[in-house]
Amino acid sequence: MNEMTAISFVRQNRERFLSEYREFLAIPSISTLPEHTSDIQRAAEWLAAGLRRCGMTEVEILPTAGAPVVHAEWLNAPGKPTVLVYGHYDVQPVDPLDEWHSDPFAAEIRDDCIYARGASDMKGQIAALLFSLEALAGQGPFPVNLRFLLEGEEEIGSPHLAAFIGTHRDRLACDVVLNCDAGIHAPDHPSIVYALRGLAYFELEVRGPQKDLHSGMFGGSIRNPIHVLCELIAGMHDAQGRVTLPGFYDAVRELDAEERAQLARAPYSDAQWLAMTGAPGLFGETGYSTIERVGARPTLDVNGIWGGFTGQGAKTVLPARASAKISMRLVADQKPEDIHGQLEAYLRTHAPKEITWTLRRHSSGPGAIMDRHSPYMRAAVDALRTVFGAEPFFKREGGSVPVVGLMQQMLGVDSIMLGFALPDDGIHGPNERQHLPTLFKGVETYIRFLGSL
Amino acid sequence: MNEMTAISFVRQNRERFLSEYREFLAIPSISTLPEHTSDIQRAAEWLAAGLRRCGMTEVEILPTAGAPVVHAEWLNAPGKPTVLVYGHYDVQPVDPLDEWHSDPFAAEIRDDCIYARGASDMKGQIAALLFSLEALAGQGPFPVNLRFLLEGEEEIGSPHLAAFIGTHRDRLACDVVLNCDAGIHAPDHPSIVYALRGLAYFELEVRGPQKDLHSGMFGGSIRNPIHVLCELIAGMHDAQGRVTLPGFYDAVRELDAEERAQLARAPYSDAQWLAMTGAPGLFGETGYSTIERVGARPTLDVNGIWGGFTGQGAKTVLPARASAKISMRLVADQKPEDIHGQLEAYLRTHAPKEITWTLRRHSSGPGAIMDRHSPYMRAAVDALRTVFGAEPFFKREGGSVPVVGLMQQMLGVDSIMLGFALPDDGIHGPNERQHLPTLFKGVETYIRFLGSL
Repeated sequence: MNEMTAISFVRQNRERFLSEYREFLAIPSISTLPEHTSDIQRAAEWLAAGLRRCGMTEVEILPTAGAPVVHAEWLNAPGKPTVLVYGHYDVQPVDPLDEWHSDPFAAEIRDDCIYARGASDMKGQIAALLFSLEALAGQGPFPVNLRFLLEGEEEIGSPHLAAFIGTHRDRLACDVVLNCDAGIHAPDHPSIVYALRGLAYFELEVRGPQKDLHSGMFGGSIRNPIHVLCELIAGMHDAQGRVTLPGFYDAVRELDAEERAQLARAPYSDAQWLAMTGAPGLFGETGYSTIERVGARPTLDVNGIWGGFTGQGAKTVLPARASAKISMRLVADQKPEDIHGQLEAYLRTHAPKEITWTLRRHSSGPGAIMDRHSPYMRAAVDALRTVFGAEPFFKREGGSVPVVGLMQQMLGVDSIMLGFALPDDGIHGPNERQHLPTLFKGVETYIRFLGSL
Repeated sequence: MNEMTAISFVRQNRERFLSEYREFLAIPSISTLPEHTSDIQRAAEWLAAGLRRCGMTEVEILPTAGAPVVHAEWLNAPGKPTVLVYGHYDVQPVDPLDEWHSDPFAAEIRDDCIYARGASDMKGQIAALLFSLEALAGQGPFPVNLRFLLEGEEEIGSPHLAAFIGTHRDRLACDVVLNCDAGIHAPDHPSIVYALRGLAYFELEVRGPQKDLHSGMFGGSIRNPIHVLCELIAGMHDAQGRVTLPGFYDAVRELDAEERAQLARAPYSDAQWLAMTGAPGLFGETGYSTIERVGARPTLDVNGIWGGFTGQGAKTVLPARASAKISMRLVADQKPEDIHGQLEAYLRTHAPKEITWTLRRHSSGPGAIMDRHSPYMRAAVDALRTVFGAEPFFKREGGSVPVVGLMQQMLGVDSIMLGFALPDDGIHGPNERQHLPTLFKGVETYIRFLGSL
């Protein structure tokens, strides 16, 4: 197999690849919103067609209790490892829509970037992998055995993925997972993630009066549910930025000196980080660097809050209820179930008797840590080094990719997190984008990675 | 003038009065929402037509920079006092709409009550006064001189009323104001309000990152604006339920022992109060009774809060901003301008440097206290006693009627707060209602009050 020929093919077909990528981005496959169910189906069909074009011998859209899984196989490389490619074709909602500078599904290109919901997370990464396969397909048989699991519910916490893996375990057997839902540190600084944070996501509702009351007639005589919710949230952190839930840090695997030293070598500065956020200042748990705070420490964030009158003008209401979405990012070896118990214990202790509260669980998943010394990890690092011309560094990722823990538990394999998103792509927010030169280097990296296994 | 004949007339025309009242309630004259501007105009026209039918000699719809004022006069009772009737024909928004058991503008009657937005606050009270005038009109000349000021912006804080009074001072000259935007304690316990709380209403926005961020990638490294907003709100009260803004209580006129004893005689219990709210328990400033907390003590309530993802499901966003509507109820002699300064001082002291904040002022107005011993107050008390067959008691009102302070300042007259809302009418919330037997007693009370001046 001639990798250089495959890479030339990619360079010659760049414009066509780009227009296929934009076609994929135009499908608003938002898994959170029921009105987009048919778009989810369209995105799955678009992918299945793409896999067939690349020469996969079995391509199926398999049902689950939710969004379907796109599965495909090519198993004609005896003696070679089997790589299970994981990705997701669903995307986050687009609100606040008025903050987008262009239609989130028009995939506008400005200054080397493509702006669209899902551009970076993660239709761009799947598209890059498809292009690498099409390029390899022209060079004879694929260098490895391939399997695909492309799901449509990652953004809602993959609620049916464990059941799917359980049912189709034989179709998913592999030596390693290539998880494309990943990124690198910077266009000139490749990196590879070896640890991921887990997630525990909750919704808390505080109820006071049976109905909204007039704040003049009743204000001062009953507890305002918004006040109580704010007090409960305010109490969830101490002055050192530590989470106060009882036992929250008990299971946390502390960093050792060697790993801290390695993390500190990352080509990264607080000034850059601050510039990416646009916030007036950085802030976090006392005693840890920014990169440690997001990669190796568990955190708690309120993702949304609402209650009372939120329209224009002034309405003097004392509301009946107030709610918040509260999620924790977990590190090894915290268990989502334990976090749920800790949050309930906190609420039982601190909620005053003049209100009632209910706690709902949304998605959750444990964190994960991978072996930095496996042959697959080394192949990925080598491919990155060759294509980007710089030494990749190992990185802990603050986000959650629950499927990584699931694959470890259910298939007994590690995942190689190889994808080409950038930290300032604005995923989940308005004006999400993908840096195109980085994406096309990604196509070449996939070619070299698969070719060297 | 024969009051009994007028009262018989009311009893004979009850069904017609009721259908006119429902016609008035069917007009969605919501002053907060720009899309209801034409409904505001329709409500003003409905009132003007009603006043003409009652025999007012001058009826005009006078423009302001906002909603028009309905003005009317009848000045043919030489030697008699001039009563300026004040009311408002605008209503609050209806959200949350899904908690209404019937259309808020269909004015459904169930179990002696009429359910509609504005039924109690205060279209019912204006309608009752109109019916009393129609009944009196059949008995010869009116017993007093009458003027009317019916505005359409009370629910948004009467932003153009002071200018209107300034321009039309000569058309509003009077000996006393009859302010119908009022209520009584219970159907069998008439009361009359002699003190009102003022209002200072603000909107606070806290901004962190420039755009919404992924809570996994950035969570733990920057301050979450929702957390900061919650901490700021949580800090606005201490453990004794006192407001912590610097200097908040400095100007408060404290209750003396005599007034506290009088307030304590009100036919009222904490159990009733609790039942009206449906909350699990009462709560307020340590050292004061419930009736003192709502009538004689200043308070702070968050009326609304919002930020981040508030839709269905789970979105892992670290939001760029969070906002709250925050209002204070003031008592004599607190000044709204001082409160604004205190809130700004609090925010300057407590807001952390990793966020920015902006504070907007909405409506505001001072509290007011009236002379309990004037002849007008005595006439109102006598009318209530006769119609309800029970001794009325004096009451402090927790709500705000800023026009009362304005009339004191600009026209030099006290207001008699005579209206027939009940504390559990649910004004400003879903399923607002008016108790009809009380309303028709109100019509009779107005007849006796005006007849005895």
